Amino acid sequence: MRTITESESDPRSDGFRMPGEFEPQTRAWMAWPHRTDTWAWGAKPAQKQYAAVARAIAQFEPVNMCVNQVDYANAKAVFDKDENIHVIEMTTDDAWVRDTGATYVVNDAGEVRAIHWHFNAYGGFENGLYFPWDKDEQIALKMAELSGVRRYRPESLIIEGGSIHVDGEGTLVTTEMCLLDPGRNASVTEYEPWSDELKGYMEDELEKYLNVSKVIWVKDGIDPEETNGHIDDVACFVAPGRMLCIWSDDPDYPFYNEARTAYETLSNATDAAGRKLEVTKLVMPSQPLFMDQASCDSIDIDENAEPRVADEPLIASYMNFLIVNHGVIVPQYGDKNDALAIEQIQAAFDAAWGKGVYKAVGVHTDQVVFGGGNIHCITQQEPAPQTR
Amino acid sequence: MRTITESESDPRSDGFRMPGEFEPQTRAWMAWPHRTDTWAWGAKPAQKQYAAVARAIAQFEPVNMCVNQVDYANAKAVFDKDENIHVIEMTTDDAWVRDTGATYVVNDAGEVRAIHWHFNAYGGFENGLYFPWDKDEQIALKMAELSGVRRYRPESLIIEGGSIHVDGEGTLVTTEMCLLDPGRNASVTEYEPWSDELKGYMEDELEKYLNVSKVIWVKDGIDPEETNGHIDDVACFVAPGRMLCIWSDDPDYPFYNEARTAYETLSNATDAAGRKLEVTKLVMPSQPLFMDQASCDSIDIDENAEPRVADEPLIASYMNFLIVNHGVIVPQYGDKNDALAIEQIQAAFDAAWGKGVYKAVGVHTDQVVFGGGNIHCITQQEPAPQTR
Repeated sequence: MRTITESESDPRSDGFRMPGEFEPQTRAWMAWPHRTDTWAWGAKPAQKQYAAVARAIAQFEPVNMCVNQVDYANAKAVFDKDENIHVIEMTTDDAWVRDTGATYVVNDAGEVRAIHWHFNAYGGFENGLYFPWDKDEQIALKMAELSGVRRYRPESLIIEGGSIHVDGEGTLVTTEMCLLDPGRNASVTEYEPWSDELKGYMEDELEKYLNVSKVIWVKDGIDPEETNGHIDDVACFVAPGRMLCIWSDDPDYPFYNEARTAYETLSNATDAAGRKLEVTKLVMPSQPLFMDQASCDSIDIDENAEPRVADEPLIASYMNFLIVNHGVIVPQYGDKNDALAIEQIQAAFDAAWGKGVYKAVGVHTDQVVFGGGNIHCITQQEPAPQTR
Repeated sequence: MRTITESESDPRSDGFRMPGEFEPQTRAWMAWPHRTDTWAWGAKPAQKQYAAVARAIAQFEPVNMCVNQVDYANAKAVFDKDENIHVIEMTTDDAWVRDTGATYVVNDAGEVRAIHWHFNAYGGFENGLYFPWDKDEQIALKMAELSGVRRYRPESLIIEGGSIHVDGEGTLVTTEMCLLDPGRNASVTEYEPWSDELKGYMEDELEKYLNVSKVIWVKDGIDPEETNGHIDDVACFVAPGRMLCIWSDDPDYPFYNEARTAYETLSNATDAAGRKLEVTKLVMPSQPLFMDQASCDSIDIDENAEPRVADEPLIASYMNFLIVNHGVIVPQYGDKNDALAIEQIQAAFDAAWGKGVYKAVGVHTDQVVFGGGNIHCITQQEPAPQTR
């Protein structure tokens, strides 16, 4: 399939846009965890939770599970009875297909294309998390070829899918903490990190590639050390004009300030259509997660990957859910707020789309959190062709 | 996707059959050559001819080109302007997807499934050509997952796709030289090589898996040392009831006797429908091919792969063509009989299907011959869903 380089064209020029996650999907993509220097106990506990997430999605739509050659036979055995899960060979460095995978765009004539952003493992040599990342850098290309769609390839633009959310109607939400940090586009342009010039450049590029006309900037995410604050831990569109945003009433909660600031920013924002955003609060887990020492000790030591330590609170929000066709796949932790989070998410989708259109389904993902992400981070939706 | 083991069911029991190669296809599969102990000059000349074959097919239908991770970036660059060629990551030992790939079967209700035969590199430790072959053994499974179809997995049956041709209406043609040899099913059953018992067992299994009722046995193929005489170098169905078969009038021609015996066997055979087969002679190249000494010397030495030598005549027939949707992709060698072969093949398809329904297209493949096969050996058709 043909590649469209930045000097040739871009999605906006060709009439393509990134659809909202709630628009119809063909399938979801995932990538099997395997790094023994990232995942505890040889990645086996994480693999079990990835499998549970895949099965939860497969109730609603097909899943392509991408697996390294060495893990292929075992992964195929794991999913052999799952008719809706396809095990696909793909070499990966790590297992975050939200951030490494293609961002798909659609036009109104039934065509789907893929954007293959540049990827540098969350900050490259400045503040990245692993090296090398050359296999992860190829994932979006391989997805485009497997989907059978043309690929847009920007010249240097570094974007992880987890750092952007769109409403499909011209509005994008992101964080300054991630997009303006020194390890990403500041490192491949002439612009200073955190500068207004970099902010303007990023807005221009996002508008061109995702065909949006309004970029709403939230200040901070909640994981400055990992993804540098991806928006997908903080807030999400439930429908055009409607968002969920994390919230805590406890001033001692680790992300109390970040959550409040995000909520206030979004509540005071208008979207591309001129609507004032309707923002609903989503509860946080009552207790931060900590990794046990034995799990930390089971992780291989490698100077090219960030070590895990047992005494740091881990990033666990209920916000990192995935919307699929008529379903929402929601993280659960064994926390006393688990059920409340599902209730709140279900209520938000019922309010936006009507009762029973979406079903919120919980999956335990503490082991995925130990690796540094959650359900939204480990999945990427492929939108269905649309005709208007 | 679910695996169906031999103890559970088989295609015949489920109402599936292998369609003729001339029935509608969804796509063709290929696998990129890479072994530097098989292919001359680092496989680069062979890759150029594989690319030419892929492009010839892509005029008629999509091609999935399966490529090892290390070759992915280069192969994608080779095919970047080819809209109909999809570059898919897949680990392979060698590049003969006809023999390692899935054999697809169809039912009358629009469903396609795959058969994942066992593969032992053309004879295993008895007379096989390379070791190990574990990646090639997985290709058919990976194709089934990528096609999104259920897979039949026989318990031990060893079959290469190049050793069978069917008419889609109950008739199969194969060779004794290959199917009854000591390195294949004789090695995994209680039956003696070349025995009537082994022949009976193979007929039963082929009838069960391909849903045929008549097996026609040709005695020998023309490459006893390589594939042990695959039928796809000797004869092929053009349509139900009609075959092409190699032929030479020169008693000194290397395969003079094998060709005549095959022609006589097929000319005297009746098919599953009771028709006497109509067999047309296909010319052979006027000169056998030889590999030059410099090319031989460029091949890496590895005790696990068969070395190539310059003074042995190589297997080059025009029979090893691939039938695609409205096209026939025919080997060419720079031989004075090249044009005549295309004429004869075009005439056979015109006679069977009407003038202009199929177009015979030639592609130079001497480098593919140097590696041990030809166009049919390096391709596998995936039939389209059918409803009747």
